[in-house]
Amino acid sequence: MSEWTKHNLIDLKDLTKEEIELILDTAKSFKEISTRDVKKVPTLRGKTVVMLFFESSTRTRLSFELAAKRLSADTLSVAASSSSMTKGESILDTARNIEAMNVDMIVVRHKSSGVPNILADGLKASVINAGDGCRAHPTQALLDIFTIRERFGKVAGLNVGIVGDILHSRVARSNIWGLKTMGAHITVCGPSTLMPRGIEQLGVKVSHNIDEVIASSDALMLLRLQQERQEDKFLPSTREYAKVFGVNRAKLKNAKKHLLIMHPGPTNRGVELSSDVADGEFSVILSQVTNGVAIRMAILYLLLGTKDKLELEGKI
Amino acid sequence: MSEWTKHNLIDLKDLTKEEIELILDTAKSFKEISTRDVKKVPTLRGKTVVMLFFESSTRTRLSFELAAKRLSADTLSVAASSSSMTKGESILDTARNIEAMNVDMIVVRHKSSGVPNILADGLKASVINAGDGCRAHPTQALLDIFTIRERFGKVAGLNVGIVGDILHSRVARSNIWGLKTMGAHITVCGPSTLMPRGIEQLGVKVSHNIDEVIASSDALMLLRLQQERQEDKFLPSTREYAKVFGVNRAKLKNAKKHLLIMHPGPTNRGVELSSDVADGEFSVILSQVTNGVAIRMAILYLLLGTKDKLELEGKI
Amino acid sequence: MSEWTKHNLIDLKDLTKEEIELILDTAKSFKEISTRDVKKVPTLRGKTVVMLFFESSTRTRLSFELAAKRLSADTLSVAASSSSMTKGESILDTARNIEAMNVDMIVVRHKSSGVPNILADGLKASVINAGDGCRAHPTQALLDIFTIRERFGKVAGLNVGIVGDILHSRVARSNIWGLKTMGAHITVCGPSTLMPRGIEQLGVKVSHNIDEVIASSDALMLLRLQQERQEDKFLPSTREYAKVFGVNRAKLKNAKKHLLIMHPGPTNRGVELSSDVADGEFSVILSQVTNGVAIRMAILYLLLGTKDKLELEGKI
Repeated sequence: MSEWTKHNLIDLKDLTKEEIELILDTAKSFKEISTRDVKKVPTLRGKTVVMLFFESSTRTRLSFELAAKRLSADTLSVAASSSSMTKGESILDTARNIEAMNVDMIVVRHKSSGVPNILADGLKASVINAGDGCRAHPTQALLDIFTIRERFGKVAGLNVGIVGDILHSRVARSNIWGLKTMGAHITVCGPSTLMPRGIEQLGVKVSHNIDEVIASSDALMLLRLQQERQEDKFLPSTREYAKVFGVNRAKLKNAKKHLLIMHPGPTNRGVELSSDVADGEFSVILSQVTNGVAIRMAILYLLLGTKDKLELEGKI
Repeated sequence: MSEWTKHNLIDLKDLTKEEIELILDTAKSFKEISTRDVKKVPTLRGKTVVMLFFESSTRTRLSFELAAKRLSADTLSVAASSSSMTKGESILDTARNIEAMNVDMIVVRHKSSGVPNILADGLKASVINAGDGCRAHPTQALLDIFTIRERFGKVAGLNVGIVGDILHSRVARSNIWGLKTMGAHITVCGPSTLMPRGIEQLGVKVSHNIDEVIASSDALMLLRLQQERQEDKFLPSTREYAKVFGVNRAKLKNAKKHLLIMHPGPTNRGVELSSDVADGEFSVILSQVTNGVAIRMAILYLLLGTKDKLELEGKI
Repeated sequence: MSEWTKHNLIDLKDLTKEEIELILDTAKSFKEISTRDVKKVPTLRGKTVVMLFFESSTRTRLSFELAAKRLSADTLSVAASSSSMTKGESILDTARNIEAMNVDMIVVRHKSSGVPNILADGLKASVINAGDGCRAHPTQALLDIFTIRERFGKVAGLNVGIVGDILHSRVARSNIWGLKTMGAHITVCGPSTLMPRGIEQLGVKVSHNIDEVIASSDALMLLRLQQERQEDKFLPSTREYAKVFGVNRAKLKNAKKHLLIMHPGPTNRGVELSSDVADGEFSVILSQVTNGVAIRMAILYLLLGTKDKLELEGKI
């Protein structure tokens, strides 16, 4: 098994295939902990992890907090509305102040792309990107890749379709980087107004035919449609989107028997997918959520291990 | 002692006398823990309890969190404003996602009656109703019954008066179910606009004479007057309510010497009761709060025990 | 070492030199814990500390929570917006209800001076003032004094300048009390509209010449300028303030080589101080934050020790 040397997790494009595999293997061994009667190990006892969320989030914040608690770390949560941000301090100053309390790790979510990089550059604490703007959401992509590998035993050579608002999706971007690195074939599909120009340069195919994408896919990732995009005139109507790109039973008639229907949540039932598909035999949506805790436990464990090592060596 | 077999706590009308007694006896043994120098036992170490509060609450949320922490469970809190609800996801989907993180128990409060049932029906995690609409608030009633039993050594045969806005009170409804099951005699008293029609069918007496109710009661529960009811035209004025139904020293002149003045909080001093009564020798209002932690420790312990058993037997 | 007998911490004017020294010495021994690989000791296991913040705060709340967690206490946080306060209950009633859950300590912040006294008078739980109105912020002053003593090995005889909005600053007031008690010489400096009349009666010098204050100081505390003061007509303009009282490299040309530049945070870069000063060699701003956790660990430890003793002796 290769050694982990990274101190921050900002974007999957920074990781090699071996590094992604190390995360997935570590997560696999941690997943069992959450099924125990006593879901807790002392691994990160006495470590401090701060959630610094400038965008609201239920599942991602909970998932990180649970991951930290199950490893016995102490967690603290700072929501944007209650933070010093409202007093005009810069994000980096807020983070430096938090770090000065001997905090080991800051998990940050922000609506602006690049904020996690600013923190990673300015801090000694480990920084995890929990979603920045339209750019990256690496732990989401890792849990998606974990879920695919768990079902198929591999990722290389599989066909993965990503459907929806590719333009604004950090989930799509991180999955494209991670899945390409792992050797999957990716087809992106969505309304042309929501398809970034030149996306093919990332090594993906573009299709506007959802039926073809469904028929050829081993795993199909449906992206959440941000309703506010309609107000921004990117979409004619939600109803129109659902009719063309929404996945229902009828559209799945030519799907492979082992197709995985995936969604990062929260789902808009009746928009990206029908209720019978969300709750049906193809869906692994709740498995993704379960795996998210294991992935985050692995990330916390690996990054904090490197931080301890770098501190010991006097390098940070 | 009878065995506990329930997996959820939604409404006291689902519980037998033996089950309520088992909760009270368990709470009695747990109450001592909170008086120790080290207020913590390892009973629920590695269990995960999530507070899912769609209505704001200080004391109920704190009481549940403290109960969980004193049993060494991990707790996480989701407030409505920061939840995915604002992104249009259904409550059941939110709860299923939380459950998928291997959460053992969800404590839910919601302004709509029936939400806890929806969650209990759709989840394997244990569900505790921390108050739903005007319908039920079972842990409040249990702590009230505990407080009465603690003082009198029994509940059966006692006269309990419940005064105020019976129509909108989940506290009144849960106490009626629980106290009747335990054999108490109940008289409800309040303005006729705030008295539900046919309430006698629940086995209670209705009185509009507060003096008679005070004179005959062993315990008197004063319900919080929601000031917004006045705007809804249920009440002529708060001042008028306080004059007729507010309890002050003068009104207590014919009270039994051992009368308990109870209130679920937060109190409106000068409305439901005068300050000298709230802080006076009859008041057990703060004892109710103390007992609330013990009751919630007992509930967490009993429900999680059943959940573990059902899981072991492969039934959930 | 003298013995600690206080049960609350409301204002530094209540403390003797020996008591302040005991806090500083205790903090010194606790500071090392936060640099360990496992930043946690079992000292306050099973104790319950509640943060009751009626004003928003990031760093002070985090600092107290981390201090409590590193001593293994359980912590709970109540923010004003979610508290019963919005239901019209008095602050003391809210606090009494929290205390009734066998809570050991309440850390309170409120925009009105005197609220911590009201709680201390009405409760058996220990009360810590985390900032009340314009009056006192004792833990901030203690961490400031700790930082000065740590650098110089003493406080007595040092010259400390406090610059800015003295009129509205609880940080200034608490530092004046604490530093005077410890034998420092204090000069306050700021716009005359923001200088309280008769401040000299507290034993401080008043100067309106920032250059003189800088030249003579061993430590210089820059107070945060509340931007809303300008709207209140206390200030002609922020720009004017920055020009006269803002500290930049040029103004430091006659400073002592060992000058400490201090700020309670959050800083307004470009107003109270320039960025190169904030991040420069004189600045101990982040050390103050680090020391804040140690000071709060010491306070929690000392106050809870007294509370346990008083309870044992039946005195509370």
